[in-house]
Amino acid sequence: MTSDKSEAIYNKACTVLPGGVSRNTVFRRPHPHYVEKAAGCLITDIEGVTRIDFANNMAALIHGHAHPSIVDAVTEQLRRGSAYTMASEIEVVFAELLRDRVPGFEMLRFVNSGTEAVMAMIKASRAFTGRAKIAKAEGAYHGTYDFAEVSQVANPSNWGDIDSPNSVPLAHGTPRGVLEDVIIFPYNDIERTLAILDRHASELACVLIDPVPHRVGLVPGSAEFVEALHAWTRRNAALLCFDEVVTFRVGYGGAQERYTVAPDLTALGKIIGGGFPVGALAGRAEVMQVLDPRQANVPFPHSGTFSANPITMTAGYTAMALFDRDAVTRLNALTAQAIARIEEAARIAAVPVSITGAGSMFRMHLSETPPATYREAWQPKETQQVINELLEYMYTEEHILMINTFACMFSTALRGAEVDRLADGLLHAFRTLKPRIDAVARREGAVTV
Amino acid sequence: MTSDKSEAIYNKACTVLPGGVSRNTVFRRPHPHYVEKAAGCLITDIEGVTRIDFANNMAALIHGHAHPSIVDAVTEQLRRGSAYTMASEIEVVFAELLRDRVPGFEMLRFVNSGTEAVMAMIKASRAFTGRAKIAKAEGAYHGTYDFAEVSQVANPSNWGDIDSPNSVPLAHGTPRGVLEDVIIFPYNDIERTLAILDRHASELACVLIDPVPHRVGLVPGSAEFVEALHAWTRRNAALLCFDEVVTFRVGYGGAQERYTVAPDLTALGKIIGGGFPVGALAGRAEVMQVLDPRQANVPFPHSGTFSANPITMTAGYTAMALFDRDAVTRLNALTAQAIARIEEAARIAAVPVSITGAGSMFRMHLSETPPATYREAWQPKETQQVINELLEYMYTEEHILMINTFACMFSTALRGAEVDRLADGLLHAFRTLKPRIDAVARREGAVTV
Repeated sequence: MTSDKSEAIYNKACTVLPGGVSRNTVFRRPHPHYVEKAAGCLITDIEGVTRIDFANNMAALIHGHAHPSIVDAVTEQLRRGSAYTMASEIEVVFAELLRDRVPGFEMLRFVNSGTEAVMAMIKASRAFTGRAKIAKAEGAYHGTYDFAEVSQVANPSNWGDIDSPNSVPLAHGTPRGVLEDVIIFPYNDIERTLAILDRHASELACVLIDPVPHRVGLVPGSAEFVEALHAWTRRNAALLCFDEVVTFRVGYGGAQERYTVAPDLTALGKIIGGGFPVGALAGRAEVMQVLDPRQANVPFPHSGTFSANPITMTAGYTAMALFDRDAVTRLNALTAQAIARIEEAARIAAVPVSITGAGSMFRMHLSETPPATYREAWQPKETQQVINELLEYMYTEEHILMINTFACMFSTALRGAEVDRLADGLLHAFRTLKPRIDAVARREGAVTV
Repeated sequence: MTSDKSEAIYNKACTVLPGGVSRNTVFRRPHPHYVEKAAGCLITDIEGVTRIDFANNMAALIHGHAHPSIVDAVTEQLRRGSAYTMASEIEVVFAELLRDRVPGFEMLRFVNSGTEAVMAMIKASRAFTGRAKIAKAEGAYHGTYDFAEVSQVANPSNWGDIDSPNSVPLAHGTPRGVLEDVIIFPYNDIERTLAILDRHASELACVLIDPVPHRVGLVPGSAEFVEALHAWTRRNAALLCFDEVVTFRVGYGGAQERYTVAPDLTALGKIIGGGFPVGALAGRAEVMQVLDPRQANVPFPHSGTFSANPITMTAGYTAMALFDRDAVTRLNALTAQAIARIEEAARIAAVPVSITGAGSMFRMHLSETPPATYREAWQPKETQQVINELLEYMYTEEHILMINTFACMFSTALRGAEVDRLADGLLHAFRTLKPRIDAVARREGAVTV
């Protein structure tokens, strides 16, 4: 009976929003719950149930909910207006802050979402090189621009030969030209990837990767792989593009600070908005010049009604100033502690669970050893079903909100007590669902699809 | 000397943002001014100069800046969080409010910008019809999705034969497939448009129009033209798509309430966000079902980290509830009064200035009679130069901020006193720049390019 209020709202929602939601992410069966309020690491629904939030709006809230410094700064800006047809100093100050964090961020342009950032990155690559094609990894998620979403959910029935993976459309009706202009490679597989890229060497504007791709398995790109892509793009006059919309949280200078080579362009989003809609394109000044409106013929004309609005800039600046080197270190240490505790829980419950991730994010897999590739990480329906049961157990019995891939994205609002709750909750879940987990677990030596 | 502060910020900005801006819209020579605060219809820069705002963040602020009801509602929501991985009731309530305004809005999905809304509309059309191509009007602006921006700035050197206009790329490096999948027609030209559409009848997912396209000349689509497109799409199993990102302000039910036929899908943005980043797709339930996540195979899988966030939903709901039938009527009457005053000023100054528009928006043209088509509205460099001089005069001498096409988009914060200031200011500008205007004005009977 406690769900009556949310159920009633959802029934109305179904009459006006397809499936009753405006984001598929928040959809759940039999219905989503509606939030009353959220503060720090706690989120309370209108039934009065409070959960610990390990999803943080899909990794976007680095300080959890309603951080007092962000609330204060935004409240102050609100009274002075939320968006103008003129410039705001905060967009310059915030751009300087981000530039000073990452050697490769010589110049930036703000947009309104990660989707817009990746789209701008691809269009900037084409404008700079004069080439049309891009290459991306099978299974990688890069937002909803159709070129970026090719093969995002490729599966055994359509992914084709690993030496030449098919370009698989996500949305029905995707133009053939889009599929032809996107070349798919297997992440972290240097030999196959270079062979594939070589076949399109003169046509590629960029090679696009997420340095820790969530849907590929949340396994970091190996140093050798990233260095090989960097060297290949140097040899072939293409750009190396990083999607750090999710992964920028991994290090003070993003996930890219872990490599000896830097991308030409980086797409940002999520945490840099301080909880407000945001995206950004950052990179080498020489490339970013394609956007410069002072030219007679601008190679990449681009604007946006809400881009760099002072609310987002104020919230983002405040959030990122607080997320300094010490805060990054502390958060990553807390996350490492959680991973160790969960691995212990899996051993105690004797379930085949492995963990991948980087920095303040990790993902659990129902296998003794973690997947190394997208095709290994890919889950048949039966596995997805058990994951959903685990998530449901955590949500309903343990009052813990996680990301629907069985992943956690930490915030600085979390402390040891919440990590204890997470590990204890997972131990209960593992024990309760052990037969289900054992039945679907992919084990070492098992045949992979 | 009063610009020293803005100039200093801009000099820093140029080292970190291409051209010193994150939106080409706010770029101006020698540099933009930075805003200190804005309230109602007034916007004050950091030099202390207060201007009357007739641009309203490119038509996005229907109540001007920092409306007290919006500030209060957002401040309250801020304390309860800005974005969740769970649902919020306000997204349902706001969707119901928009649905109840417009007969064709059976269902909605929220996104983060007008660009995202148009992209979602095109992808939904393809998913519903299984076809790849779209048709759009030469010169029409529909955001930065590359399919939507084809021929946005077509000019005499590249636009080709009016019976079969070229698909002209906007950004350098636009894929050939994009150009091939976009069919261009001349707005409001029924005979030519139908002949062009007929040549691609079986391939078109949708016909996309803005009912009052700003860059085409801000001339409303004629009833006959819209009815002809509607009938053509019925005959050929294609969808009729309206971009009402800008024009929704024109009537209580958008510009579409002026026609006897309704589009299948409508893209929204701008005013429905109450000053915060927003977009939405609205339309027939049968079509919107392509987004429904409850299906085994979702034709158009779609999500977005900040889509339907409760801050935007709260601000948007508050703004649109205030913009009721009476408010629309009053605002449109005030705008009509302004147009009459400006036409009078043009007569007094004896300059060839004509005005187009609808509802609370209008655009001035340097010609005795208003342009009827994009090719007539297209301005050679000399004309653009004089427009820039007029805008500069208004900005610098009269302290009036307008849209850079010599257009105004009104807000409910404006009153008769501001209309007087606008008309008086334009009279001064017309008188001062009369020789310049006369030199470039396109007159009746003059040869059009």
